[in-house]
Amino acid sequence: MIQERLSKLRAAMRNAEIDCYIIPTSDYHNSEYVSEYFMVRKYFSGFTGSAGTLAVLQDKAALFTDGRYFIQAAKELEGSGITLMKMGEPGVPALSEYVEQELKEGQNLGFDGRVITAGEGLAYEKIAEKKKGRVIWNQDLAEGIWEERPELAFTPVFVLEECCSGESTESKLKRLREKMKEEKAQIHILTTLDDIAWLFNLRADDVESCPVLLSYAVITREEAYLFAGESAFDEKVRAYLGANNITLKPYDDFYTYVAETVKKEPELKLLVCEKRINYRLKKEIGDSVQVIDKANPTTLMKAVKNAVEQENLRKAHLMDGIAVTKFMFWLKKNVGKIPMTEISAAEYLESLRAQNPSFIELSFPTICAYGANGAIIHYSATPENFSEIQAKGMLMVDSGGHYYEGSTDITRTFILGEITEEMKQHFTLTARAMLRLKSAKFLEGCKGINLDILARGVFWEKGLDYKHGTGHGVGYLLNVHEGPNSFRHKPLAGSDENWAFEEGMVTTDEPGIYIEGSHGVRIENELLCRKDENNEFGQFMCFEDLTYVPIDLDGIDASAMEESEKRTLNLYHKFVFEKLAPFFEGEELDFLKKATREII
Amino acid sequence: MIQERLSKLRAAMRNAEIDCYIIPTSDYHNSEYVSEYFMVRKYFSGFTGSAGTLAVLQDKAALFTDGRYFIQAAKELEGSGITLMKMGEPGVPALSEYVEQELKEGQNLGFDGRVITAGEGLAYEKIAEKKKGRVIWNQDLAEGIWEERPELAFTPVFVLEECCSGESTESKLKRLREKMKEEKAQIHILTTLDDIAWLFNLRADDVESCPVLLSYAVITREEAYLFAGESAFDEKVRAYLGANNITLKPYDDFYTYVAETVKKEPELKLLVCEKRINYRLKKEIGDSVQVIDKANPTTLMKAVKNAVEQENLRKAHLMDGIAVTKFMFWLKKNVGKIPMTEISAAEYLESLRAQNPSFIELSFPTICAYGANGAIIHYSATPENFSEIQAKGMLMVDSGGHYYEGSTDITRTFILGEITEEMKQHFTLTARAMLRLKSAKFLEGCKGINLDILARGVFWEKGLDYKHGTGHGVGYLLNVHEGPNSFRHKPLAGSDENWAFEEGMVTTDEPGIYIEGSHGVRIENELLCRKDENNEFGQFMCFEDLTYVPIDLDGIDASAMEESEKRTLNLYHKFVFEKLAPFFEGEELDFLKKATREII
Repeated sequence: MIQERLSKLRAAMRNAEIDCYIIPTSDYHNSEYVSEYFMVRKYFSGFTGSAGTLAVLQDKAALFTDGRYFIQAAKELEGSGITLMKMGEPGVPALSEYVEQELKEGQNLGFDGRVITAGEGLAYEKIAEKKKGRVIWNQDLAEGIWEERPELAFTPVFVLEECCSGESTESKLKRLREKMKEEKAQIHILTTLDDIAWLFNLRADDVESCPVLLSYAVITREEAYLFAGESAFDEKVRAYLGANNITLKPYDDFYTYVAETVKKEPELKLLVCEKRINYRLKKEIGDSVQVIDKANPTTLMKAVKNAVEQENLRKAHLMDGIAVTKFMFWLKKNVGKIPMTEISAAEYLESLRAQNPSFIELSFPTICAYGANGAIIHYSATPENFSEIQAKGMLMVDSGGHYYEGSTDITRTFILGEITEEMKQHFTLTARAMLRLKSAKFLEGCKGINLDILARGVFWEKGLDYKHGTGHGVGYLLNVHEGPNSFRHKPLAGSDENWAFEEGMVTTDEPGIYIEGSHGVRIENELLCRKDENNEFGQFMCFEDLTYVPIDLDGIDASAMEESEKRTLNLYHKFVFEKLAPFFEGEELDFLKKATREII
Repeated sequence: MIQERLSKLRAAMRNAEIDCYIIPTSDYHNSEYVSEYFMVRKYFSGFTGSAGTLAVLQDKAALFTDGRYFIQAAKELEGSGITLMKMGEPGVPALSEYVEQELKEGQNLGFDGRVITAGEGLAYEKIAEKKKGRVIWNQDLAEGIWEERPELAFTPVFVLEECCSGESTESKLKRLREKMKEEKAQIHILTTLDDIAWLFNLRADDVESCPVLLSYAVITREEAYLFAGESAFDEKVRAYLGANNITLKPYDDFYTYVAETVKKEPELKLLVCEKRINYRLKKEIGDSVQVIDKANPTTLMKAVKNAVEQENLRKAHLMDGIAVTKFMFWLKKNVGKIPMTEISAAEYLESLRAQNPSFIELSFPTICAYGANGAIIHYSATPENFSEIQAKGMLMVDSGGHYYEGSTDITRTFILGEITEEMKQHFTLTARAMLRLKSAKFLEGCKGINLDILARGVFWEKGLDYKHGTGHGVGYLLNVHEGPNSFRHKPLAGSDENWAFEEGMVTTDEPGIYIEGSHGVRIENELLCRKDENNEFGQFMCFEDLTYVPIDLDGIDASAMEESEKRTLNLYHKFVFEKLAPFFEGEELDFLKKATREII
């Protein structure tokens, strides 16, 4: 089947004069998750993983994916004739090296410019130039081949009322236009779905785990245009747009509109974040207008949660904390007594969240990893591949929900029975790391790079480390991974480090330790940045816990903790008990009392 | 007297068509300390502080200096007609603002381009341009006015033998030329005195507290030219230069040489660090040659001390530790019993250092600050202004020596009798901060910005801070402040942050707390960066203590320390005792035992 699809693709490539066709895993907006419509790589390769790029030539094809998917991809690519390229393994070329190596003089490189970032596209241009060929970027070759391709999902759009958003679109547009004025820009283009949803206070369900709408936006000093699936807007939402002077236009008209606008007004100054846009938009903008390439002002604005959002987040996390703590009670009570798998446990947890009417959907696919699976950082149980949960070892659960009052992200590792001394020490280290970071008090101006060591240093002292950031920003009923705030000891390549912690930013605090083949521990709270005292030394900042779920004391070796860490843990548990107790009774309340007891 | 000098200067300015003349505190090499010859600002203003810039116009003059010198400058400027500009105070313009404000249309701005950095000069160019005037930079107007001006100091140059330097000039030149090749540069110019001294393994005494020689260097792929005071080179040193294929040229020929070279060979690619050169050199280089503007490769090379330097540093610090610990014994035994002032105590400490034949000179002017003077970060006792030391409160001593085996920098705060509870808590916080940072274990790739919070965070937790970096790199028989390594929570403006800790880097660890009008505490060790374990998580790094002097336990409240901090302190004191004991006997040995006792 795959071979047949590829042979049709190759015919289309010949037709289009494309000698090497690149199919990444992306939508037109560089979203972290993509909807079915965009799963072209899966269609042509059979590989179902969430990350990977397919490069197709007339006589060969190669799929590039990372370590998480080596085994799965090898299995799924069997018989397809596609070579698996294990990224990062010795001797394996990078995708760009492979393309350069395979493309012959005079041959052309092709891709749908909408699913390739501007930066990637420019790199491909250079390769094509070297080969004296062209880059052909204006066609999606899946069209006409993939017959049962799902429709682009334009789910019903709803307005996030001011009781949830805390700021009107009018006010947000005003602030954005002030920034545009500062930058001397007449026009601003947004293609990132969370920025658009935040700015217009709109939400939908067009992308898995992200309550956003497929859309583009163009904002001028007076006008605002929203390019989206018109069918998804009912009268009420249309009236709301009208009242806010936002003109709705068809999703597909966006590129033509941009091309015409820049043609009509070549003296325009355009504010756009080139790192965030796709290659096609970059080409449509062209070279005639003056581009002010800066981070989207909305990115920082939405990272700073307003007072209403902060208050709502406390509510969302309370609902979430009740669900996760009841899950903890259920898990520890029933493990070894009733059948339980990674999948059934995750489903049970989801059902507890879903009991709350404010719950919309999971904020990302739950990672429910038992035993050695906990060591796989991006583990995902599937119906074909999952573990039974037994009354020993540890279960790591990283999950979250979207509520009308905001989004949550929490990880707890639960002790299900006997654990080794090493596991207990690793659990204790992880708890210490999480606690130390969340207790930070620091001067205004600090970034994640200043604070990361408070968590990570606990592991470094023991010659250990975790190969991920200590924490990321979280959107408000938006993407669970949101910039610019994060805790990292090295900036991510290409990230904008021109920020500092501000009151209202929400960041996860999630150190962990992963021992291949044995176990993994991660403990994650969300932290709301707050102003602390202001004195002659300056404005101090601190964090407020947004997550209210006990840390499993069965994993703690109190003798391996500093006094200050024990104080922090006890205070946290006292706080969790006070928050949750009103919602617990009977044996659940007894459990909560025990789970939040003071340790010495 | 000052008015007479200024009136001569104004006549010279009229002659030179200069309407505003700028006199900073600098030599031609942007050195931290300057020799008498360069004290032009002091000559024309009467202000003797180490930092400040004088701007002279026909009808007025203004001296810009910072908070350290407000009182002193006000006193010294009395009757001079010069206005004191208190930098950083509300309503006080910056120097550049002042110049722009005072300069009238068509007027010219003047300075000696050799004492102004390239960056400052370019900023002045812009001001002159706005005013439709010129920048006149090729004259030192002090010439012809300052009759008793000291000669340029060209003190005898000596070769630092390989037993001290650990690497031959041949090898250093080879490494430098490899870097030049990497950068595709044919020629490299060095004007920073420590880079030149390090590269050629030469030392002299041309700058206070810095054993360097006034010089410039030009390095090509085959040749090396040293522009210096020829009279300072004896036959032996000349033979050494000859053997290393280094051509000695007159100091004054440098600018002409550069101008002629770039004229002769406009296709040259020149590697030069524009941040480190003066404006005159920038003008002589001009625009015709291609400039590769990067950090001097020697800066990183010399920051990484080789094995011989490391071993020598341990010896230098042992000599230094013996002197400072004997000073501590003397101080605590005699305070309140014999007359003692900040000046006599500093002199006594210097005499102890000088007992060692390897001692060359102090590595910087000793800060010996009693009581409330300790709160003044850059305090300096003068014969006119000093305090008696009494048997109460605290004495902070920040000092160091240049030895043939390297340079030292150490601060200890000594308890001289009764102290308040606040002082004790502040002393304990400072010790905790110093100890936490020095115990850091971290992954390769970390910079100062990652680690600073280990020290500073201890203060932040209490709503306190210190307004200086936590530590700086230290040269090897060179500048006591040396880049690129440092501990800071924010990069210094203009600093090159493109570095990470490497084995062999030496950095001070010197947190402190300063309470105006009351007291100051600073405790400083030097740390040698070392490789720690290398495992599946990567290469870990740690620090070795180079400083061997007890931390005054009379200031420590053990109950306010974490267990791990007490362990670190006890281990450090055990190590200090083992190092020093062989050199102590009688009551000094008894004192050492007591001063390094274990605390619980």
